[in-house]
Amino acid sequence: MTKKTSRLNHLSAAGEAHMVDVGQKDISYRKAVAGATVHMQAETARRIAEGTAAKGDVLASARIAGIMAAKRTPELIPLCHGIQLTKVAVELHVEQDHVRVVATAEARDRTGVEMEALVAASVAALTIYDMLKAVDRAMTIGDVALLEKHGGRSGPYRRDA
Amino acid sequence: MTKKTSRLNHLSAAGEAHMVDVGQKDISYRKAVAGATVHMQAETARRIAEGTAAKGDVLASARIAGIMAAKRTPELIPLCHGIQLTKVAVELHVEQDHVRVVATAEARDRTGVEMEALVAASVAALTIYDMLKAVDRAMTIGDVALLEKHGGRSGPYRRDA
Amino acid sequence: MTKKTSRLNHLSAAGEAHMVDVGQKDISYRKAVAGATVHMQAETARRIAEGTAAKGDVLASARIAGIMAAKRTPELIPLCHGIQLTKVAVELHVEQDHVRVVATAEARDRTGVEMEALVAASVAALTIYDMLKAVDRAMTIGDVALLEKHGGRSGPYRRDA
Amino acid sequence: MTKKTSRLNHLSAAGEAHMVDVGQKDISYRKAVAGATVHMQAETARRIAEGTAAKGDVLASARIAGIMAAKRTPELIPLCHGIQLTKVAVELHVEQDHVRVVATAEARDRTGVEMEALVAASVAALTIYDMLKAVDRAMTIGDVALLEKHGGRSGPYRRDA
Amino acid sequence: MTKKTSRLNHLSAAGEAHMVDVGQKDISYRKAVAGATVHMQAETARRIAEGTAAKGDVLASARIAGIMAAKRTPELIPLCHGIQLTKVAVELHVEQDHVRVVATAEARDRTGVEMEALVAASVAALTIYDMLKAVDRAMTIGDVALLEKHGGRSGPYRRDA
Amino acid sequence: MTKKTSRLNHLSAAGEAHMVDVGQKDISYRKAVAGATVHMQAETARRIAEGTAAKGDVLASARIAGIMAAKRTPELIPLCHGIQLTKVAVELHVEQDHVRVVATAEARDRTGVEMEALVAASVAALTIYDMLKAVDRAMTIGDVALLEKHGGRSGPYRRDA
Repeated sequence: MTKKTSRLNHLSAAGEAHMVDVGQKDISYRKAVAGATVHMQAETARRIAEGTAAKGDVLASARIAGIMAAKRTPELIPLCHGIQLTKVAVELHVEQDHVRVVATAEARDRTGVEMEALVAASVAALTIYDMLKAVDRAMTIGDVALLEKHGGRSGPYRRDA
Repeated sequence: MTKKTSRLNHLSAAGEAHMVDVGQKDISYRKAVAGATVHMQAETARRIAEGTAAKGDVLASARIAGIMAAKRTPELIPLCHGIQLTKVAVELHVEQDHVRVVATAEARDRTGVEMEALVAASVAALTIYDMLKAVDRAMTIGDVALLEKHGGRSGPYRRDA
Repeated sequence: MTKKTSRLNHLSAAGEAHMVDVGQKDISYRKAVAGATVHMQAETARRIAEGTAAKGDVLASARIAGIMAAKRTPELIPLCHGIQLTKVAVELHVEQDHVRVVATAEARDRTGVEMEALVAASVAALTIYDMLKAVDRAMTIGDVALLEKHGGRSGPYRRDA
Repeated sequence: MTKKTSRLNHLSAAGEAHMVDVGQKDISYRKAVAGATVHMQAETARRIAEGTAAKGDVLASARIAGIMAAKRTPELIPLCHGIQLTKVAVELHVEQDHVRVVATAEARDRTGVEMEALVAASVAALTIYDMLKAVDRAMTIGDVALLEKHGGRSGPYRRDA
Repeated sequence: MTKKTSRLNHLSAAGEAHMVDVGQKDISYRKAVAGATVHMQAETARRIAEGTAAKGDVLASARIAGIMAAKRTPELIPLCHGIQLTKVAVELHVEQDHVRVVATAEARDRTGVEMEALVAASVAALTIYDMLKAVDRAMTIGDVALLEKHGGRSGPYRRDA
Repeated sequence: MTKKTSRLNHLSAAGEAHMVDVGQKDISYRKAVAGATVHMQAETARRIAEGTAAKGDVLASARIAGIMAAKRTPELIPLCHGIQLTKVAVELHVEQDHVRVVATAEARDRTGVEMEALVAASVAALTIYDMLKAVDRAMTIGDVALLEKHGGRSGPYRRDA
């Protein structure tokens, strides 16, 4: 737990939701990396990997969906500030029985981009689920987590492996 | 794996992404239930549970974010059809070291509402992360999965516990 | 007060926000008319009325903004169902010291279109404010109210003049 | 009337709507406060105030809806510039026969945030209407107005009480 | 010219924009096909065609952008009705000095889907421009037109070749 | 072809779509002008030109649709960065058998605004099509192209007439 005694900063003293004031914070370089894993049957993973065209469109759809969702984070997460992302990338690694999603978001802004990276990873994972659900309804998405964070007052963060 | 031999129906014969034709399917009652779990430190879970007002707004924000996101599923998941949901509900259960999210979506339509339920559960979980990240950056979202599905040609589905 | 003893139907028995289940309701014709008034200095109203081109674009902008906003009601009002409107119209009447907005929404659906009409009227009024605020910052919007409602279990409603 | 002789700056010399050029303006601190009042039967106001959970979710829904709408102002009001808000807050005061909404928006930008504050106040008020309309269809929203404005060339503004 | 004497049906008798009333029209099968052509240097077209991975992502991005835009037609084109599309497909043909886009939209609704097909074709073409503009800024999009239309009172339409 | 040897910068070395990193670029003044032409029967063009009110609303609708679409460019074009436009204008010239659309976008940002201008021109043209399609279904949109560009590393650009 990073700051044990702080109160939840998305709530006012009266416990009411509000968008935190970041007006006094300086504009600085921000980066966040988030991951998500789509667990599936080995047969399902093999389908993605086999056949160039199909692979292209399943993975391209997920990448693009993740990138587009990152840009809409403030519309989805109620108290997120609008941020002009300078970069978003979504990498997809097809493994034997899962697809690993790693999303990176960067900005020069007054507030961090963790939520943008997490939204990109989640929506890319959900898109993979959508495109494969007809053959494997029991897929599960797990390990949705912040992997790295740079910039901002709280300093760099790297999740332990 | 439900239908081992079918091709991925979001891809054309040439492997290209397209929105599946559901024009010939009948309108029928559709329901899907999806879950997600936000794992956190016990101290963080205790913060949500303690203090009525704060609890109200953290959980209410997550519920509302999940419901609103369900309605925008076709904007997020590239090949999802637009659906007019007749009901969306997001339940949040604060446990000792996690919050369990259960989202239900219902419609009378030509296609299922699994993605709507999964998007609601994911965005509610991400909103909880956002509201608590200042005190517990290492929270992880897992077990994002379809729990139940009713309606449609493929018949009812219930995930094994 | 229409139904004194009913509980608020956007809240569950536990007081939690959810989108009401309308799946059992029949599809029927629905109509709602809502109004709003933008009070302004007589000089400001005169500016709108004078000069054909300018009048065209101030009023056309407000009409179009109201119509477009009506279509996005479920994105703005958290617990509103998605509705496919069959008609939206926004009428604007420039009077001596105010502009009267009357918005009509119609649909064939399982739930009413009051919020669509109210959102259209409000956003049209706010657009008028936006286009004139450089010359009259003290304009006030009032009388935002449902004027008429047809269709649905609760029967027709007409506000007393 | 602030500037009696200026032409409406959202219209070109030919009277056509356009988005005003703010490229030459300096980035500075901007703040706006707007209000709205939802008039209702005393019985309706009592329902909001009574019962902690229900109160939490009616008011939390309205607060969150107002905050989220503020972020989408440029999508609703045709000629508004995109703005990255550094803070948004929506306060709700339940009185004997009305709820008073006060919304604050802040930014560091080239243009003011009046419309963001007015949209937040209006959508919060409309959300209250939506959640209570089953019991009190005759509620009216009034006094939607700019209360305060800071920053920008035209200097501070405070509405007379 | 299909109906020489009709007035423009998106304008009221007073010449004001409104969303046409389609409430009395029957729900029926609707289909529209639209095309667009992105003219480019032969070198640019060769770049898309060469290299499997690159080709996959340029064309997949354009296809997905077109499909997603079709779903948002009513948010872009002010007087379009919301429509629940039952199918959208975007085909891309890379030729010697151009890419030909053909978009198909289908629905069972009270109104046609021409605009959905045209928006899909236009946004797919614009996405191709965006992805290639660094190497060929002078690309031009032309021949954006309705190719076919089925369903609705006005009967089938097929553009002459 | 501006830069013959560069690779497509929206694709990674592996040919995958990503949002280009603009974090190292300086903020500078950016401007782009784009055009589009809606070809129509002379009779159709005459309808727009005749009758002040009708003309006002057809052209005002197209102008406003173009301006609003420019602001949503990053939601439509998958790899576009979010940009805060400082100005958008859409000019419409009604000629004997066509309407010429010229859209201008400006910003102070790290990346260009070509796509914003092209989206504005395209959506304005599509809106004209929508409003007139009942009388002239065979209208065609052509000459969608970048006319001018200022700012950024690649220097000014002006399309040859």
